[in-house]
Amino acid sequence: MNDNPALHLSSFGNGLRVIIIGATGGIGDALCSSLNTCPQVTEIYALSRSGDAPKSDKVKGLPFDFTDENNIKTVAELLRETGPFDFIIVATGLLQGNGISPEKNMRALNIEALTKSYQINAIGPAMTAKYFLPLLKRKGKTVFAALSARVGSISDNQLGGWYGYRASKAALNMILKTLALEFSHRYRDAIICGLHPGTVDTSLSAPFQGNVPKGKLFTPSFSAHRLLTVIDGLSAEDTGNLFAWDGQKIPF
Amino acid sequence: MNDNPALHLSSFGNGLRVIIIGATGGIGDALCSSLNTCPQVTEIYALSRSGDAPKSDKVKGLPFDFTDENNIKTVAELLRETGPFDFIIVATGLLQGNGISPEKNMRALNIEALTKSYQINAIGPAMTAKYFLPLLKRKGKTVFAALSARVGSISDNQLGGWYGYRASKAALNMILKTLALEFSHRYRDAIICGLHPGTVDTSLSAPFQGNVPKGKLFTPSFSAHRLLTVIDGLSAEDTGNLFAWDGQKIPF
Repeated sequence: MNDNPALHLSSFGNGLRVIIIGATGGIGDALCSSLNTCPQVTEIYALSRSGDAPKSDKVKGLPFDFTDENNIKTVAELLRETGPFDFIIVATGLLQGNGISPEKNMRALNIEALTKSYQINAIGPAMTAKYFLPLLKRKGKTVFAALSARVGSISDNQLGGWYGYRASKAALNMILKTLALEFSHRYRDAIICGLHPGTVDTSLSAPFQGNVPKGKLFTPSFSAHRLLTVIDGLSAEDTGNLFAWDGQKIPF
Repeated sequence: MNDNPALHLSSFGNGLRVIIIGATGGIGDALCSSLNTCPQVTEIYALSRSGDAPKSDKVKGLPFDFTDENNIKTVAELLRETGPFDFIIVATGLLQGNGISPEKNMRALNIEALTKSYQINAIGPAMTAKYFLPLLKRKGKTVFAALSARVGSISDNQLGGWYGYRASKAALNMILKTLALEFSHRYRDAIICGLHPGTVDTSLSAPFQGNVPKGKLFTPSFSAHRLLTVIDGLSAEDTGNLFAWDGQKIPF
């Protein structure tokens, strides 16, 4: 699953400028690597709390904290001066860590953990959209995508549990849909959507990989390549929806 | 629309004991009044921040703050000693006020307001469920319902705006669905669902009634009567869903 074909983004031209937010996470890092090998892409802004980035002429690391509106605004202003962008991917997400673990049942519900999940999984991407959507090019296909999750689908929920993660990703799906509606009147070709990366072998999923069927635990590199292929395949009428790594539309 | 027929809850027996949370709000107060006139109902616990309640032998006011887990737990323990309940309705909700107003567009997105909306519209009902669901009778039809809203439906969203309210109600819908799944294994007859009250003439909707079509702005009394009729019509297979005041199932 690591043998990805070379990335070719047939719906985009050359000289592509992209922003990856959460660029040091498992999937964020793989998105940067995959884009780095694509000759169409000339500049990748890799945003993360640390600002770390792989050594490459194309990749520029920038420290970014999407829990701080002033910081989001400052970084967006800095990026605006470099010129408009083709696509932006928010590759952040919190399932466990920092005192949070997915609730097995309702007895584990906790105000602080629910608040934190929402701040990271829903509010952070929303505040990023506020300042970063205006950085997209005004003409031609552009994309603002955020990592969501199939477990954030209310109608698809059949197992229960994971209250805070599920609820915050459902909220994120609503925020993306609402942004898409707002933008459909202003930038006709901007596509705003959620992406389900599959279950990817990252620190986020590490404690929960036991039940993943053989062949369904993806490497970050495989998932990143598939998500970029999904983005390549999107057109204006897809805006506001949630897409899985295989291009399948997931109901809300 | 005020001439409600007498409330008869044909799917329930007599000696009904119910809890209304947010009992001093427009719809909560009307739910208490409607239940107060129903001969099948013998006890109504009316919970609200103030603990105020209409004068009635049946209605008992209790102060309650669902942003404080210790308070939720204390009130639940007190209620448990009075015996099990037939149904519980969470009739709270925050659209505007306390420095919050529904966002007209993404430029109005604000971290504090988004957090507050989520705490009131999603976390409060979730934490209430944690301590109040065990108060339901173990046998026979029981219901835990929370006021949600059609604008919390992601697939039904066609207008955009109102980010914080929409996202927090979508999250609430997910929490109710997840609770329903958890409880379907434990209490087979418990029904957990969301309710859309319509646009009701309350302080919540007051600034936004201008565009409501004639005949579609309900009195609290009409809406409360219809919601109780919807609850009466629910059966076990309805658990986890979102229902409008007219009994129509709303997609997520």
